[in-house]
Amino acid sequence: MEAFALKRALDNVRAGSPLVHNITNYVTVNDCANALLAIGASPIMSDEPADVEDITSICGGLTLNIGTLNERSIEGMFAAGERAGELGHPIVLDPVGAGASALRTRVAGDLLDKLAVSVIRGNMSEMKALAGGAAATRGVDVCPDDAVTEDNLAAGAAFARDFAAKTGAVVAITGAIDIVADADRAYAVRNGSPLMGRITGAGCMLSCLCTAYAVANPGALLESQVAAVAGMGLAGQQAQTRMGGLDGNGSFRTYLLDALYHLDGNALEAGAKVEELV
Amino acid sequence: MEAFALKRALDNVRAGSPLVHNITNYVTVNDCANALLAIGASPIMSDEPADVEDITSICGGLTLNIGTLNERSIEGMFAAGERAGELGHPIVLDPVGAGASALRTRVAGDLLDKLAVSVIRGNMSEMKALAGGAAATRGVDVCPDDAVTEDNLAAGAAFARDFAAKTGAVVAITGAIDIVADADRAYAVRNGSPLMGRITGAGCMLSCLCTAYAVANPGALLESQVAAVAGMGLAGQQAQTRMGGLDGNGSFRTYLLDALYHLDGNALEAGAKVEELV
Amino acid sequence: MEAFALKRALDNVRAGSPLVHNITNYVTVNDCANALLAIGASPIMSDEPADVEDITSICGGLTLNIGTLNERSIEGMFAAGERAGELGHPIVLDPVGAGASALRTRVAGDLLDKLAVSVIRGNMSEMKALAGGAAATRGVDVCPDDAVTEDNLAAGAAFARDFAAKTGAVVAITGAIDIVADADRAYAVRNGSPLMGRITGAGCMLSCLCTAYAVANPGALLESQVAAVAGMGLAGQQAQTRMGGLDGNGSFRTYLLDALYHLDGNALEAGAKVEELV
Repeated sequence: MEAFALKRALDNVRAGSPLVHNITNYVTVNDCANALLAIGASPIMSDEPADVEDITSICGGLTLNIGTLNERSIEGMFAAGERAGELGHPIVLDPVGAGASALRTRVAGDLLDKLAVSVIRGNMSEMKALAGGAAATRGVDVCPDDAVTEDNLAAGAAFARDFAAKTGAVVAITGAIDIVADADRAYAVRNGSPLMGRITGAGCMLSCLCTAYAVANPGALLESQVAAVAGMGLAGQQAQTRMGGLDGNGSFRTYLLDALYHLDGNALEAGAKVEELV
Repeated sequence: MEAFALKRALDNVRAGSPLVHNITNYVTVNDCANALLAIGASPIMSDEPADVEDITSICGGLTLNIGTLNERSIEGMFAAGERAGELGHPIVLDPVGAGASALRTRVAGDLLDKLAVSVIRGNMSEMKALAGGAAATRGVDVCPDDAVTEDNLAAGAAFARDFAAKTGAVVAITGAIDIVADADRAYAVRNGSPLMGRITGAGCMLSCLCTAYAVANPGALLESQVAAVAGMGLAGQQAQTRMGGLDGNGSFRTYLLDALYHLDGNALEAGAKVEELV
Repeated sequence: MEAFALKRALDNVRAGSPLVHNITNYVTVNDCANALLAIGASPIMSDEPADVEDITSICGGLTLNIGTLNERSIEGMFAAGERAGELGHPIVLDPVGAGASALRTRVAGDLLDKLAVSVIRGNMSEMKALAGGAAATRGVDVCPDDAVTEDNLAAGAAFARDFAAKTGAVVAITGAIDIVADADRAYAVRNGSPLMGRITGAGCMLSCLCTAYAVANPGALLESQVAAVAGMGLAGQQAQTRMGGLDGNGSFRTYLLDALYHLDGNALEAGAKVEELV
C-alpha cells in the first residue's frame, strides 16, 4: 500500500466529519454512535421505513447491521439502501449472525443482491454463510473451525478475493488476523487485542467506522477499509495497555472508545501491521 | 432569578425522587436511565401503545424523544401524552432531528399541537424547524449557521420567547450558550463543555432530567428548567476537569454521569452561570 | 448447601461458555451482553418472531425480560419459549414492572403459565403481582412496603417456597436481602451493595447470568441460581470498594462489569453469604 495511505484515510475522516446513517442493532448502538463521534464522524440512527430515505439523503453513507433485525427494520434497510444507491453513497453491510438463522442468512443475502453494497464486514463464519458455504455457526461469534490463522491465511485471502469478485464489494473479514480484500488485492492486518472479543460491539463499531472511512475517502475504498480495520485494532491494542489489575471488560470498553478518540493519522501509519498477501 | 431558586429546584428532585416515564430512542436510552438515577429520580421506559397509559399513570411526568421514532412508538407517544395531559403531568418534548426528515418535523409538530407540552428541549436547528422556519439541518446536530453565539444571543432570546408564547411551553435551546425562556422571561446559561458534543446523548439525558425537575417543582417550571440546564452544563464542566491524557469520549461519558450523581444544590447555586436577558 | 457448590457452579459457566438467547429490554441490553461476556458466556439477542426459533435452537438457554415489551417482542417471547421448552432449555423469566401495568402483569402471567419456566427472577413487588397478590407498585422498583428485611425474611421465604411450588420454578427474589427458593428449600443471600439500585440494569444483568448458570449446571438448578445471585452481589460489593471520591453511578456500572469479569469460583465460595432458611 502506498506510503501514508492509512494516515490520509483517517485524516480525511477527521477533516470531513462525515454524517453516517446507521440501521443497526439495539445491543451495541450506543457504542456505535460514540465510536463514530470518537473518530470525528457524526452518527444518525433511523430505521422506520417512513423516515429512512430522508435521513439517508442528508448523510454521506449507510451502515446496515442485522444484529437485531425485525420486519420493520428489514423494510427500512431496503428502503434506505435503495436511496443510498441512487445517491451513490457507500453502503457497509454487517451480516451479524448470518448462518445462525435462516432469516439472517436470507436477509443478508438479499441485501447483498439487491443493494449496491460497497463493503461487507463480518467474521469468517458469517462470510462463509453469506457466500453460500455450509458454515457451522456459534451464534454471533466465529466458529472455531473458521478462525483465520497463519496456517489458513492464504486460503482465507483467496476466499476473500473471490467473494469480493463475486459481489463487487470490498470484503473485510475480522478476527485474530483480519483480511481486507477486493477482487485483485488482499491485505492481512495483524493489529487488535483478544479483549475485543470480551466486549459486545467491537465488530458493530468497526462496521460503522468502515462507513465513515468510505465516505471520507472516495476513490480509495480498499485503502480506506484497511485503515478502518487497522485503526480499530490499534485502538484495541492501546486500550489493552491501559488495563489495570482490577479492570475488566467494562473498563476495556471505555478505554477502546478513548483510544479511538485519540487515534491520529501518524499513530495509525506507524502502528498499523498491514501486509499485502500475494 | 430569586436567590436559591436553583438549589431548591435540585433539592426538590433529590427529596421527591420523581418517577419519570420516558419514550425515547434506543441509542441513548441507557444513559438517560442512569442520568435520572444519578440525580435521584427513577426512570421507566415503555413505548408499547397498550402499555403506556398505565405506566404514565403511575409516574409524575413524561419525556417524549423522537430520536428513533417508529410507527408503534409514535402511537405510544400520543397515547401516553394524552393520558399525561389528563393527569396534569408535565410533558417534555425533545424533537431530535426535526428538520432532518419530513416525518420527524411532522410528528414533532403534531405532538406539540395535540398534547399539553410543558417544555421543548432541543438545539436551535430543531427549534427553528419546529417553529416553521426553513432551518438548514445537519442531522441531529445543530447547523453551524444556527449556533447561538454572543452576537446573536438577543435574537435567539427573542425567538425563544416568541416560540414559548406561541406554544405555551418553556423553551430550552441548548448549545454553546443555552437559552431557557417562557413568553415573558429569557435566561442565558453559560455552563457546559465542548466535550458534551463528542458523546451521544447529552441532549437526550438533559431532556429526561428536565422532566424530573418539572415534576419535582410544581409552580416553578421556568426556574426548574434553568436549574436542569445549568446543572447538566455544570456536570459537563466537572467531568471535563477529570479528563486525563488518555481519556476520551468513553471516559467523559462515565465522568458526566458521575458528576450528575454528585451534583448538589449548593454546588449548582454556586456554579451556575445564569443571566437574565432583557 | 454442599461445600464448593457455588465454586463449581461458576467454574462450570466459565468452562462451558454457554450460548444464551436473550429477549430483553433495550434500556439495559448492552450491559446484559457485557455481563454475560464478563462471566465467560456468549450472548445473542433476537426478538423477531421469524428469527427466534432458529436462534434459540443453537443456544443453551433463554432469558425473557419484559422491560420494554411490545406486541412483536411478546410474540417472539412465546415462540422462543415454546421452542426452548421442546428442546429442554432452561428459561429464566424477569417480570420487569409486573404490577405496574395491566399488560405487564398479564404477559408475565401468561409466559409463566404457558412456558416451561425454570427460574423467575424479580423484586418482591413484581413477584407478588405475579403471584396474584395485590402488590402496590413503584414502577420497576420495589415498593418500600414489600422490601425484604430481617424482620419479614421468614414470611418472604415462605412466600418464595409457595410460589416455587405453585409454578415449578426456582424463585429468586432480589433486594437488600435476596431469597432463592424452590418448593422445598429457601436460601437467604446477604451479598450486594446499595449502589446496585443506583444504576439501571443490575436486575436485568442478573437474570441473564441466571440463564447462563442454569445452562452450565444441569441437575443443580437451585444451587446454580444461588451462585448466580451471590456472585452478582459479591461483584457489587467489590465494585463498591473501588469507588473513589468523584466516582458515581457511571463508574460503578463499569466497576460492576469489571468485578464480574474477575469473579472466580474460589472468591465466590469464600465471599458468598448464603444461609439456608428453615
